[in-house]
Amino acid sequence: MEARLDDLRAAFSGRLLTGPDETAPFLTDWRGVWRGEAFAVVQPDTAQDVAAVVAWCARTGTPVVPQGGNTGLSGGATPDATGRAVVLSLTRLDRVRSVDPLNNTMTVEAGCILQRVQEAAAEAGRFFPLSLAAEGSCTIGGNLATNAGGTAVLRYGNARELCLGLEVVTPQGELWDGLRGLRKDNTGYDLRDLFIGAEGTLGVITAAVMKLHPAPAARVAAFAAVATPADALKLLALAQARLGAALTAFELVSDTCLGLVLKHFPGLRPPLEAPSPWYVLVEVTDLIEEARGAAALEGLLEAGFEAELVSDAAVASSIAQSQALWALRENISEAQGHEGKTVKHDISVPIPRIGGFIAEAEAALAAQFPDNRRVVFGHLGDGNLHFNLSPPEGDDGQRMVGQQEAINRLVHDIVDRYDGSISAEHGLGVLRREEAARYKSPVEIGLMRAVKQALDPQGLMNPGKVLS
Amino acid sequence: MEARLDDLRAAFSGRLLTGPDETAPFLTDWRGVWRGEAFAVVQPDTAQDVAAVVAWCARTGTPVVPQGGNTGLSGGATPDATGRAVVLSLTRLDRVRSVDPLNNTMTVEAGCILQRVQEAAAEAGRFFPLSLAAEGSCTIGGNLATNAGGTAVLRYGNARELCLGLEVVTPQGELWDGLRGLRKDNTGYDLRDLFIGAEGTLGVITAAVMKLHPAPAARVAAFAAVATPADALKLLALAQARLGAALTAFELVSDTCLGLVLKHFPGLRPPLEAPSPWYVLVEVTDLIEEARGAAALEGLLEAGFEAELVSDAAVASSIAQSQALWALRENISEAQGHEGKTVKHDISVPIPRIGGFIAEAEAALAAQFPDNRRVVFGHLGDGNLHFNLSPPEGDDGQRMVGQQEAINRLVHDIVDRYDGSISAEHGLGVLRREEAARYKSPVEIGLMRAVKQALDPQGLMNPGKVLS
Repeated sequence: MEARLDDLRAAFSGRLLTGPDETAPFLTDWRGVWRGEAFAVVQPDTAQDVAAVVAWCARTGTPVVPQGGNTGLSGGATPDATGRAVVLSLTRLDRVRSVDPLNNTMTVEAGCILQRVQEAAAEAGRFFPLSLAAEGSCTIGGNLATNAGGTAVLRYGNARELCLGLEVVTPQGELWDGLRGLRKDNTGYDLRDLFIGAEGTLGVITAAVMKLHPAPAARVAAFAAVATPADALKLLALAQARLGAALTAFELVSDTCLGLVLKHFPGLRPPLEAPSPWYVLVEVTDLIEEARGAAALEGLLEAGFEAELVSDAAVASSIAQSQALWALRENISEAQGHEGKTVKHDISVPIPRIGGFIAEAEAALAAQFPDNRRVVFGHLGDGNLHFNLSPPEGDDGQRMVGQQEAINRLVHDIVDRYDGSISAEHGLGVLRREEAARYKSPVEIGLMRAVKQALDPQGLMNPGKVLS
Repeated sequence: MEARLDDLRAAFSGRLLTGPDETAPFLTDWRGVWRGEAFAVVQPDTAQDVAAVVAWCARTGTPVVPQGGNTGLSGGATPDATGRAVVLSLTRLDRVRSVDPLNNTMTVEAGCILQRVQEAAAEAGRFFPLSLAAEGSCTIGGNLATNAGGTAVLRYGNARELCLGLEVVTPQGELWDGLRGLRKDNTGYDLRDLFIGAEGTLGVITAAVMKLHPAPAARVAAFAAVATPADALKLLALAQARLGAALTAFELVSDTCLGLVLKHFPGLRPPLEAPSPWYVLVEVTDLIEEARGAAALEGLLEAGFEAELVSDAAVASSIAQSQALWALRENISEAQGHEGKTVKHDISVPIPRIGGFIAEAEAALAAQFPDNRRVVFGHLGDGNLHFNLSPPEGDDGQRMVGQQEAINRLVHDIVDRYDGSISAEHGLGVLRREEAARYKSPVEIGLMRAVKQALDPQGLMNPGKVLS
């Protein structure tokens, strides 16, 4: 053991951690749902050091568990219980290597915190749109490994659509330099997109070329009351036809969600005078001037009133007011966390079928698990819902968690019938691995296994994640 | 031979061609650059029939050469000279299976002509943006197999970015149903993007779910004179900052190109009074009204005049005028074809480096191959140039074609030093296969080979294309 550790230590420049206190934070996810053991935790200094560590692991048959900011929700960055793995933390690869505003690209290392990436873009007069709740601690490498979504996908796409090139350490410990800053390149297989979303099971992303966008002059938000998800969908269609790419967010919030946020965040105020069963948060972005964006948003809401889709709305008239409206949306998860344990589903369906899906899934849950509260919100413009459950008020949720498997099955069977996805933006990790295998065809699982076997024949890269 | 043919004929529903007259059009590319032989040409009726044909080929060890509209420029759809292959023409799979305007998607079969896909979208009040010169005869399956680009990539992306899901026949003859109409789905490896751009070497695309966009109210074009590519780039940056997603095309045209078009298309008129070494064709799209789009475009050009980037400009004031400006751009290739043989390069570089690239490549060609004319145009907003050569006036170009290898090497070595791509939108086929192997790293070629071996271990899918 000691000889092996010395050998590993000699292989790279960076930190090697073995003490229980030092390694503990890397051996569990931030919610404490999964817990594992590791032979060691390494934090290499450079991509070359990552390559050296992975080469050592390949030589010695040691499993590798890549880890970014450790903010995942599916257990994809936690080692298993065997203690055989090395946890490979990318957090010391945190340089912004370059920003090229004329090419609208930046080259960043995998361990860069997402917020730092956003800031570096802003410093160069550009906008990096990827945005999600964990942005203060998640890393761009983790965002790419899980193809993260967030609140700007409607306009700018997932992490995948924001990436032009990658640098990757292969399972054999070789460094692939695919750091291209090109809009068009048709010279062979799309290796970039194969590594994106593979959750570290095919290799380790060490750096990426990300796309930048022009910095908008203003982002204006409104909170609007709608009677049903079906009305919200009609308003979405209206918004897309009128606003096109100026529509940058279209989020759905149930009254239950709003109630939880107002209860647990007393600094936040109800956005409208009267409650409504459902709300949408709409954001319009304007490149040139705030007034034009606000006028476009107000025009949409007026059309929504006229079409009897919107019964009331509040349009932010300042950045602070926009942020306050966004806070109502962004704090739902945390508010839900104060109401006992949770059962979460990160699902997507074709957009026009969301109304039917919500009705059917809510009815089925009400029939079979009537006590639990349904906490439904999400990225309506992407067809992506966080279809969550909380226990009855005052209940800690232990009983509900005991029913989790049956609840998941009920919800995901409906998702499947609606031609949807059981993991829209959180990845499979270990959480959804077996369920994905149930809903996917044998042909698709076979193709995935063939790719895994081809690139990682030893099966050392993040074993047990994505595929069993 | 006859017994084998009977066996194949019995395996599927559709046409089987063996007579020399019938098969001839499938055995050469439309330009007549490549020519091959085939055991048979098959045109199956359905995806299940494609699967049956490919299964038969897998069983009998018969190579398969998938073919769409046969409009490629890299020889990717022509069989080799051995006569062992079956040419698998997808043209009978030409149904638009469904259009879902509320989900902004359509499901189309691989053999649908691109123009038909555009029309079906328009009939549903939506816009399908993929557009290129061959759209009247190329197929959507071929567009996806080669990740086609065209004139709308700046705003809407390549074929890859327009696709949400695929149906594919694997090299083993199994049918993978990945026809998802979801904006977000993170449940495993990105098989879709692996098949897109693989030029039929990993499987056969039989259908796809494509993204639709809101139908714009107006598209307004302008033709502007600029002194240098560097000034064109500055105007591009100005356009992106002012117009964002309303900027839908930004094409570069040299005066040589314009001269060839005006010479060979006498119905077209010079767009400006005085000639200029370079021009840009700029297009602005507006969702709501033409006047707003025209005002935005005029505002950009005024800013360009003030910044001394633009010396003269013509803004189209009608659809007919816009089409006339586009005709000056779209007929360059055909005009060049009337001036003897051509040597073409479909290259891309990071956008801010285009000016330097053009200067260096033109100087090197002028020094080493001084007689030939340089015919340079392309999608400046994507960093993609068609950096072509024509022989001196009156010369048929045979001598130049004899120097082709040296010319390619000279141009592509410069592309490589500029961190560019030697095939931006035309794919590798057989034309660029060996050159790609020279410029790519052994690690990348190794990864590509591993993927090929994993999915097509018999090596029967479009052999000799992409990889040697």
